Amino acid sequence: MIQALSASDGIAIGKAFVLPQWDWELPDQKIDVADLAKEFERLYEGVRRSKTEIARIKSELDEAVGVQESSIFDAHIAILEDPVFMNEVQGIIQRQYKAAEVAVKEAIDHFVTMFDLLDDEYMKERALDIKDVGNRLLKHLLGVPEISLPEDTQPFILVVRELSPSQLINLKPELVLGIVTMAGSPTSHAAIMARAFGIPLVMGLEGKLDRTIATGDLLIVDGGAGVLHVDPDAETIDKYAALRKRQLSQREKLLSYAGVPSVTPDGFSMVLAANISSIKELEAALASGAEGVGLFRTEFLYMDRDHFPTEDEQFEVYRAAAEKLEGKPLIIRTLDIGGDKQLDYYEMPEEENPFLGYRAIRFSLGRKDLFKIQLRALLRAAVYGDIQIMYPLITSVEEVREANQVLAEARKELQAEGTAHRGDVPAGVMIEVPAAVAIADLLAEEAAFFSIGTNDLVQFTLAVDRMNEKINHLYEPLHPAVLRMLVQVTEAAKRRGIPVSVCGEMAGDVLALPIWLGLGIEELSLSAQAILPVKECMLRTPAEAGRRMLDELLRCRTAEEVRERAQQFHVEMTPKRGRVRTGVNSRP
Amino acid sequence: MIQALSASDGIAIGKAFVLPQWDWELPDQKIDVADLAKEFERLYEGVRRSKTEIARIKSELDEAVGVQESSIFDAHIAILEDPVFMNEVQGIIQRQYKAAEVAVKEAIDHFVTMFDLLDDEYMKERALDIKDVGNRLLKHLLGVPEISLPEDTQPFILVVRELSPSQLINLKPELVLGIVTMAGSPTSHAAIMARAFGIPLVMGLEGKLDRTIATGDLLIVDGGAGVLHVDPDAETIDKYAALRKRQLSQREKLLSYAGVPSVTPDGFSMVLAANISSIKELEAALASGAEGVGLFRTEFLYMDRDHFPTEDEQFEVYRAAAEKLEGKPLIIRTLDIGGDKQLDYYEMPEEENPFLGYRAIRFSLGRKDLFKIQLRALLRAAVYGDIQIMYPLITSVEEVREANQVLAEARKELQAEGTAHRGDVPAGVMIEVPAAVAIADLLAEEAAFFSIGTNDLVQFTLAVDRMNEKINHLYEPLHPAVLRMLVQVTEAAKRRGIPVSVCGEMAGDVLALPIWLGLGIEELSLSAQAILPVKECMLRTPAEAGRRMLDELLRCRTAEEVRERAQQFHVEMTPKRGRVRTGVNSRP
Repeated sequence: MIQALSASDGIAIGKAFVLPQWDWELPDQKIDVADLAKEFERLYEGVRRSKTEIARIKSELDEAVGVQESSIFDAHIAILEDPVFMNEVQGIIQRQYKAAEVAVKEAIDHFVTMFDLLDDEYMKERALDIKDVGNRLLKHLLGVPEISLPEDTQPFILVVRELSPSQLINLKPELVLGIVTMAGSPTSHAAIMARAFGIPLVMGLEGKLDRTIATGDLLIVDGGAGVLHVDPDAETIDKYAALRKRQLSQREKLLSYAGVPSVTPDGFSMVLAANISSIKELEAALASGAEGVGLFRTEFLYMDRDHFPTEDEQFEVYRAAAEKLEGKPLIIRTLDIGGDKQLDYYEMPEEENPFLGYRAIRFSLGRKDLFKIQLRALLRAAVYGDIQIMYPLITSVEEVREANQVLAEARKELQAEGTAHRGDVPAGVMIEVPAAVAIADLLAEEAAFFSIGTNDLVQFTLAVDRMNEKINHLYEPLHPAVLRMLVQVTEAAKRRGIPVSVCGEMAGDVLALPIWLGLGIEELSLSAQAILPVKECMLRTPAEAGRRMLDELLRCRTAEEVRERAQQFHVEMTPKRGRVRTGVNSRP
Repeated sequence: MIQALSASDGIAIGKAFVLPQWDWELPDQKIDVADLAKEFERLYEGVRRSKTEIARIKSELDEAVGVQESSIFDAHIAILEDPVFMNEVQGIIQRQYKAAEVAVKEAIDHFVTMFDLLDDEYMKERALDIKDVGNRLLKHLLGVPEISLPEDTQPFILVVRELSPSQLINLKPELVLGIVTMAGSPTSHAAIMARAFGIPLVMGLEGKLDRTIATGDLLIVDGGAGVLHVDPDAETIDKYAALRKRQLSQREKLLSYAGVPSVTPDGFSMVLAANISSIKELEAALASGAEGVGLFRTEFLYMDRDHFPTEDEQFEVYRAAAEKLEGKPLIIRTLDIGGDKQLDYYEMPEEENPFLGYRAIRFSLGRKDLFKIQLRALLRAAVYGDIQIMYPLITSVEEVREANQVLAEARKELQAEGTAHRGDVPAGVMIEVPAAVAIADLLAEEAAFFSIGTNDLVQFTLAVDRMNEKINHLYEPLHPAVLRMLVQVTEAAKRRGIPVSVCGEMAGDVLALPIWLGLGIEELSLSAQAILPVKECMLRTPAEAGRRMLDELLRCRTAEEVRERAQQFHVEMTPKRGRVRTGVNSRP
């Protein structure tokens, strides 16, 4: 048994398939000066083919796992369009008369070395992207065929030094039972892909194996525990087979709750809605019993293309979502671009602290032309369902007024044109910045509803970037300061009589359930996977017990005390058998 | 009259000195293979000389304007030690057999072009640094003498295309009446230097002149207004001469308040202390009548060298400061490194959002060995004055307890060793993160005092990086959310009976004065320049009027309303003649 890094949950039992390493022969003759133009043409042709291929992969991936994951490949296209990278390649061809494939190889090596020197996690991830897309380009220039699996290949456990997203896509994910890598990080793009496909993944085995794994070796991968077994004995196999069966039956049992109303034993009902980024995800959410959509992230509609989406393009997507929901509420968040989300076709300023930068409503109010297009599409689509509009990153009364001003203009225009639309679409705000908490009473007079975005709120409140490995242990949603802010927001909303929901990752943490019950929150918006585990807890936790527990939690002085007490409560409320794992992920 | 960018306040009237552009001849012969080693030796020698020269400039600058400004030159030394830059230079010599100076020139051009392509303000500043230090290195390789001014040179107004910090230092700043540049930004290092020297500076004249300025032309520079006059008529000269005289006499009048106690007309007294980074700055602060030091930033003690300062080195500085203060209180903030402040000799992780990263108390608690050295030095120095310790970036009760734990250990060690120290040094916390505001009541039970750091507090509360040009108009200390937080902190401190002071830039804004009077704040800590303007206002503003005004401000719904009302109040309280400029800078 080898202990390494947990990167994607689940258990896989099967035979190893060790992926051969890319190692290609490159031409060593110099190019003739007369052939330079021809060489450039070869390079451009290779880039074109690579881009077409990436676009195809990306659209297949949209279908399979959703736009959020497929957007990883946007970074690859961006590299092929990056002047710094392409100048380097062209420079080597032009000045050193080297063949296009040699120039590409040298440029990859150059940037990977440079980024590695910088010793920066973000840059390392970019280096991996350059390697991955560079290899694809090389493949096209050299005419090397894809590694393809024989028709009769049986499902296998993939063993690879370092996993790239391209490799994973290329290998028919449905055949991959589990994955084992020597290097790489659980936060890498490849690990994100494995999680999206639900493939168990253990990483970082370098130096931990006392023998080489060969194709055909029997392996057990326990992704959740980060454990690998090589050539396990019969007893171990039986143990893991049973564990695997239990996990699957647990999943099935949860599914049986999909149609059950979300009501506590003492009759308090709370809508469990879904966070989605695409129509595809909406289907998965409805299958998990989502009672509406509390957060439709529209940025992926903007990221998944090469131009700003037109009003009609947006209208079609919003309408399709509204129709699929058959009258259930659909809260659509206006464009939340910037921060860590960029557009390929629109240059945003590079920022020292992007989380504290030009993003979300700040961008929309800076580009009212684009904002109005989105609002027009929303008002038109609202004819087809219960659409509500939500503004992100609000910090002041003025911003809400200014946004509502643009909304009023959009309405007036549609009216004047005689275009079908709904005039009375409610506009609410996200509460995700400490300023919004502090002036929640003032905002409640301007907004139709509140939705608390806990991810950003916790980040700003604690001054912790949760993506930063060095300090993300300080990212603690159960911090007393956060609890007090949640109380402040909820009280302000209730005093004014507007609904308040929660749509951050914290909403999917079953430990936080007594907080929502205690506050009397009307709606939680969760990732599709989190809906049923939360509902299961809710079905057996009386709201009254939640209220008492919240009072206790509010008397705690440290996050540790809060977490301990909430953990105890969770255990008290859970029947001895079938306890549900805590900390389900759901990123708004 | 030409309107351009205001970059450093003040008025200058004098003759132009147009600085010739650097334009050097580079050798065009290739190096012989046999001479490669010699060429590398020349390169290294040039680097050594450049570094020695920079170190000398830096230490002169420390004396003249303080360590914060001189630290600009740390970036230059860092470039000469940067493997990416030096590899590029060496690569060109080795692979292309070019002379060291040619290689340096090409490497400069390469990086400057690359950084410019990235279209990022921070990278542009780095490009300017590379150009500046690269030119210095070139100068040494080519043996070009410094531009030196004749002995009898009269003070002049410097006219230059783009100003580098090196040029400014080189030109005897005492001779420079004012500066005019064609390109460059008021946030550039060169502009920071000009402000430190108090030299009026107008930038960005490119394309705005209808004629070339020649050496000897008469110019008027109004730095505060960003205005340049070329060949002004007698009337204009008279007008500006009078204006200049008024500014100087205003400054003198302020100085006369230095010895006056800071008490409002109705008898409320508030200590006006200073923010300092060095002993040098302490002298300036005392000359301006500082009644103590509310914030001694120790990071510059760590930045200004090539190793962590030893306990004795720190002790000497703290003791010197305590002695100079002759019993007045001295609040010393423990190391606040990270974010935008880096050490040359200690590699911090590169971070996507450094403001939300590994910094301040997080670093100290991560490196308790270093933290304890600082705390030991502080306890020892406390024998010589009223030293108090302050922890930065506190977000939880646990952090205060953990820091106090290290403090207790330091005390126990000194006791056991029999080293002279003071055991009862009070330890307070900075309130500069929204979490600290939310749990101020809990923190008040752990800390000896509060000091509100408004710069970070406003940044985190509003989720605005004030260094980010694209959105820093949203950085608004007079935001209703900030006001409410100030009330919350002060009430928590008063309920527990611990003192509360304010040490951010906001403390130096005379518009905020009614807030401090209304809250009954005990102490403001200000930059040396801000002390007298604030005292002048305080001497004629009754605390009772401040209290009534704060009540009014707290009823405002938007920052705009707050600002307007505070502005009105300021005007009401100001005698018709001699109104003081608002918004004095003081960066904690």
